[in-house]
Amino acid sequence: MKIRVVVPIIVDIFDKEVEKEFKAYSSENTEIEIVHLDKGTASIECVYDESLAAPDILNKTIEAEKKGCDGVIIDCFGDPGVKAAREIVDIPVLGAAEPSMLFACSLGHKFSVVTVLENVIPMIENIAKVLGVKEKLASVRSVDIPVLELHDKEKLKNALYKEMLKAIKEDKAHVLILGCTGMMGIAKSLHEMLEKEGYDVPVIDPAAASIKFLEALIGLGVKQSRLTYMKPPEKERKI
Amino acid sequence: MKIRVVVPIIVDIFDKEVEKEFKAYSSENTEIEIVHLDKGTASIECVYDESLAAPDILNKTIEAEKKGCDGVIIDCFGDPGVKAAREIVDIPVLGAAEPSMLFACSLGHKFSVVTVLENVIPMIENIAKVLGVKEKLASVRSVDIPVLELHDKEKLKNALYKEMLKAIKEDKAHVLILGCTGMMGIAKSLHEMLEKEGYDVPVIDPAAASIKFLEALIGLGVKQSRLTYMKPPEKERKI
Amino acid sequence: MKIRVVVPIIVDIFDKEVEKEFKAYSSENTEIEIVHLDKGTASIECVYDESLAAPDILNKTIEAEKKGCDGVIIDCFGDPGVKAAREIVDIPVLGAAEPSMLFACSLGHKFSVVTVLENVIPMIENIAKVLGVKEKLASVRSVDIPVLELHDKEKLKNALYKEMLKAIKEDKAHVLILGCTGMMGIAKSLHEMLEKEGYDVPVIDPAAASIKFLEALIGLGVKQSRLTYMKPPEKERKI
Amino acid sequence: MKIRVVVPIIVDIFDKEVEKEFKAYSSENTEIEIVHLDKGTASIECVYDESLAAPDILNKTIEAEKKGCDGVIIDCFGDPGVKAAREIVDIPVLGAAEPSMLFACSLGHKFSVVTVLENVIPMIENIAKVLGVKEKLASVRSVDIPVLELHDKEKLKNALYKEMLKAIKEDKAHVLILGCTGMMGIAKSLHEMLEKEGYDVPVIDPAAASIKFLEALIGLGVKQSRLTYMKPPEKERKI
Amino acid sequence: MKIRVVVPIIVDIFDKEVEKEFKAYSSENTEIEIVHLDKGTASIECVYDESLAAPDILNKTIEAEKKGCDGVIIDCFGDPGVKAAREIVDIPVLGAAEPSMLFACSLGHKFSVVTVLENVIPMIENIAKVLGVKEKLASVRSVDIPVLELHDKEKLKNALYKEMLKAIKEDKAHVLILGCTGMMGIAKSLHEMLEKEGYDVPVIDPAAASIKFLEALIGLGVKQSRLTYMKPPEKERKI
Amino acid sequence: MKIRVVVPIIVDIFDKEVEKEFKAYSSENTEIEIVHLDKGTASIECVYDESLAAPDILNKTIEAEKKGCDGVIIDCFGDPGVKAAREIVDIPVLGAAEPSMLFACSLGHKFSVVTVLENVIPMIENIAKVLGVKEKLASVRSVDIPVLELHDKEKLKNALYKEMLKAIKEDKAHVLILGCTGMMGIAKSLHEMLEKEGYDVPVIDPAAASIKFLEALIGLGVKQSRLTYMKPPEKERKI
Repeated sequence: MKIRVVVPIIVDIFDKEVEKEFKAYSSENTEIEIVHLDKGTASIECVYDESLAAPDILNKTIEAEKKGCDGVIIDCFGDPGVKAAREIVDIPVLGAAEPSMLFACSLGHKFSVVTVLENVIPMIENIAKVLGVKEKLASVRSVDIPVLELHDKEKLKNALYKEMLKAIKEDKAHVLILGCTGMMGIAKSLHEMLEKEGYDVPVIDPAAASIKFLEALIGLGVKQSRLTYMKPPEKERKI
Repeated sequence: MKIRVVVPIIVDIFDKEVEKEFKAYSSENTEIEIVHLDKGTASIECVYDESLAAPDILNKTIEAEKKGCDGVIIDCFGDPGVKAAREIVDIPVLGAAEPSMLFACSLGHKFSVVTVLENVIPMIENIAKVLGVKEKLASVRSVDIPVLELHDKEKLKNALYKEMLKAIKEDKAHVLILGCTGMMGIAKSLHEMLEKEGYDVPVIDPAAASIKFLEALIGLGVKQSRLTYMKPPEKERKI
Repeated sequence: MKIRVVVPIIVDIFDKEVEKEFKAYSSENTEIEIVHLDKGTASIECVYDESLAAPDILNKTIEAEKKGCDGVIIDCFGDPGVKAAREIVDIPVLGAAEPSMLFACSLGHKFSVVTVLENVIPMIENIAKVLGVKEKLASVRSVDIPVLELHDKEKLKNALYKEMLKAIKEDKAHVLILGCTGMMGIAKSLHEMLEKEGYDVPVIDPAAASIKFLEALIGLGVKQSRLTYMKPPEKERKI
Repeated sequence: MKIRVVVPIIVDIFDKEVEKEFKAYSSENTEIEIVHLDKGTASIECVYDESLAAPDILNKTIEAEKKGCDGVIIDCFGDPGVKAAREIVDIPVLGAAEPSMLFACSLGHKFSVVTVLENVIPMIENIAKVLGVKEKLASVRSVDIPVLELHDKEKLKNALYKEMLKAIKEDKAHVLILGCTGMMGIAKSLHEMLEKEGYDVPVIDPAAASIKFLEALIGLGVKQSRLTYMKPPEKERKI
Repeated sequence: MKIRVVVPIIVDIFDKEVEKEFKAYSSENTEIEIVHLDKGTASIECVYDESLAAPDILNKTIEAEKKGCDGVIIDCFGDPGVKAAREIVDIPVLGAAEPSMLFACSLGHKFSVVTVLENVIPMIENIAKVLGVKEKLASVRSVDIPVLELHDKEKLKNALYKEMLKAIKEDKAHVLILGCTGMMGIAKSLHEMLEKEGYDVPVIDPAAASIKFLEALIGLGVKQSRLTYMKPPEKERKI
Repeated sequence: MKIRVVVPIIVDIFDKEVEKEFKAYSSENTEIEIVHLDKGTASIECVYDESLAAPDILNKTIEAEKKGCDGVIIDCFGDPGVKAAREIVDIPVLGAAEPSMLFACSLGHKFSVVTVLENVIPMIENIAKVLGVKEKLASVRSVDIPVLELHDKEKLKNALYKEMLKAIKEDKAHVLILGCTGMMGIAKSLHEMLEKEGYDVPVIDPAAASIKFLEALIGLGVKQSRLTYMKPPEKERKI
């Protein structure tokens, strides 16, 4: 199967690491194709960024279907453009937040998300509300590091570890989700750090969650419901 | 006070009627300015349309603030671009769905929305979820008439009346909301038709609700919370 | 338009300040009339006080309609007698809690109320439940100052400021509501104090919210639904 | 133990039947005392009636405590005055709705209430909301018979039976509650009628539920929490 | 009336104290019969223990009905086997958690449970969810003492008192429930300790709650709904 | 990877078809092993059956881990024994209901389950409540065919089709789940039948959902949280 991963930003600095991450988690016979945007923003950290990125995300999604892809991943924890994309193609489309939250629901009593900046906390809580799993969400916390500074992995891991301990102790989280797809390649070692402290809890990498969930949907032979995501009616559109 | 109404479509066919509607409901000393989009779609009937309209909605909002407006209304029941717009300006921004639903909450036990097409029902239910008033929503129904065919007012009124009766009898709605800002100038006569049938229930015109709610916010001297709608960080943006 | 404000207590000590407050927020062409009760209690701080005040609140409401008022405000954050009053007149009736909470819903992700005494916290939470907006309520906090000691404005402001900071930091409130109509004339300066601390959040004055909401309803030409608030059947009543 | 039953209306026509009903369900060593109101209304069918009845309900409750009663029942399905009464005495106070709903929660998946008139449906749904059991409430239905016409038992039973079947078939109710304390002495035969039709579901008599629940609370040695129902502060009260 | 209490463990060490406890709270004319299990586990502290205990709990329940008992109590706060038991007999069956939580709902705004070990917290929260009263549950806390070490009453009381104070102050609990039926004979003195500290809140003994609730149901003449708990179809069963 | 599928009944009549079904959906390099129970019941159609099956389900789960399996599926839509099984092994354990519901959450606005008999409807609704996705559940319907009569595939398909149409039209379901793992090999043709009628909605086969979800969890390298599912303490257990 062939899957296109849309990195919904206009810079290519994450492309290589994203490709490595997705290849690490995808099945043997899954072909991964990484693209980034021509128009949009350098990172996604607010609803404004999401709105500017959406039109080109939709172009890249239509392109993916034309090229014969079996599914599309919008590689961002804000799930930007995902609902619109599901309307316009006949292949499954996922962001990173929904699959992470749904896996978390099956793994423990309540889950917390640890994300980059405070501004995105309401956005993430609203995703959980619309997805219908708000009741399982213990908290959303942030490490206060902008997306474009996530490359310092040691700093990032320490900051995440600190918030994760608070999520467990204060918010009663039993499962943890990394709340930004820029937080790559560190889920496993965070799990180990927490286990050493006596907390054997799953730590979910959102990119990994999205690829496994999408492969599962394709394996099941299902796509989004056309009663929720009807094909847009024909009309004049000027972009 | 000066208010800009953004009609979030690329055609001007509604502009005059919209202006008349808003002037009918606004206070004496409120100045109304109507603009439509340069880029976007001919009508908004799905998430795809909303996504394409959002970038220019945001331009028109920034422009409004620069010109000294005291508030902005995005004149559509899908509230497209509203959350992003609140991030980028320091004046209150409203769509039509939120104010209609909040007024409805105060007027009766449960409310129903009657909208244009089935595809927008999940969108409207999700607005109620995110706004936190889902529990008060008895139902969302549709008359199955596309936005661009709403001009036949008699057909529209009859179709709405039929669905409103069902909302009252089957879904136990006590308040009714017209679920599209294209349904102008008919709320009062629908109220009368229902009252004749023995149902003295409020019928809310969404454009009227948005202007009265916005005038009230401006009168209170408040705008959106900067903890929910933080100013977007500086970064490269290419549109 | 003419609006009666019922101050639901048997003392007149607040009347002048209430009049000033309402006139400050009402529109130019709104006429405000203040009345207090003949029977009831010196302040409202528990359900018992509300129950004793309700019968005369209802008298004053009937009187208002007879005198040609366009709407009635019961000037108390417990909304005492409001539902009963809506049954017996054909003009809109509001307390102070409902409008404050509904405006708060549109301004940010979650809101907190800071009120006078601990005993009224369950009452206020129950209002939010019945109104259907419980999910948006971050917390109700109290300053532990009885209604009849609210006149020391500096003490009050400092106590409110302290609790508001806790509401923001600990309860994640993004909007704040003053939870007693006796807390007059201080919303603006509390907003400034919080803004200086880095929290640009709306602070809602409940009396101001009630008058702006009522003017909006009257402007919309709507009143309470007769399916929720049916006219009481004729029968023997001895008071 | 000694229990006062306050019939919260100003007529004595129900007193004898109420006494018989309560004695039928109370334990051997329970002494039942019936009183009705001096001031209030002839029946309770709206919030307005409840508000007019409340002050004398509170008098009768204080009197009960002074006379050494171990608990008080306000014999009405609207639970009028119950919360205020709990504030002012140190003995448990119950209406009829809360105990009926709580027993129903333990007996089956969902319950429906069948009451007298449509106007009280929102009142009953709000009681379930405030009590926190809204999720278990399948529906509230009415037979459209005023309280003062409930004496025709055959007509009443047939009307109730018809609505109960609809509650079971359409609303998926598994437990049924008679939603007015005027519906005395018929729960058992309604249960039999439903059982014959193949529906072996509990039918709860609200007066019986209130006396059994109150005896249980007294047996447990508990009364209402003083953190929810604090003693009203001393102040001027003029009634 | 005759009630069988099934102590769902394979050791008899609690039997005498259980008998004393139940006799202390039951009515004069209630006959109490205590049995423990032949197969199962020495205590119940996880879902695994509950699953192993269930088959013999069901045997003991069938036996009770055959012997003419009027009701059965499964004496454990995890309510193990309760739903299955309700399917197979025509007499009411209760565990200890449901009655405790339902009494708590009527006594105050929110309740907390203080239980033995952390592992049972999700189990107890899930009981509240399924019972439909999750909204009233302030928190579940634990004292970290295994069931088989509960005999040191002073240690237990002090540990409970400490957690109860936290439940009141931090979680805003207004009613408290002892979350293990092994915590016998101490509810009253915990209530006194809290009252001395200024918190006059009910403390519910779960065994006492179960017997009073069951006597009430039997007095009402009702049992579980056969629409929720249908009789199991005939089929091959090998145990 | 190696997965054991526990068919939680004491008869082998489904084993071959189950094996075929799981092999059809599993990945190439997944080894499937089917076992049924030695003790339990011939089918699972009530909580009583689940309780009798649980102990041997747990034995078969422990055995699976000892034999080196990477995960276990309890092949029943009631998820019997799943929570207990998660406590006792260090490999992920899934039933069929949870994965089906979680996939459904991502595919559309609301989902319905169509199951075998009415008695299991409350059980399935309770699974959705505990899983935290109740808000997404449009309805649970039944075809009224016992598990052991599911072999007549044409009858079954027609009955399911009829209920699915009602779920779509009356309950507003946008996604459908087959609510019994005995309904094998028909999801695809039901999807086609619905698509022909104009409803292009996903139809989820619960066995297929469980194997794809489990493979995904194993691929992610996660298992159940030890804070939710702690290892049972050592103690005497007699089975």
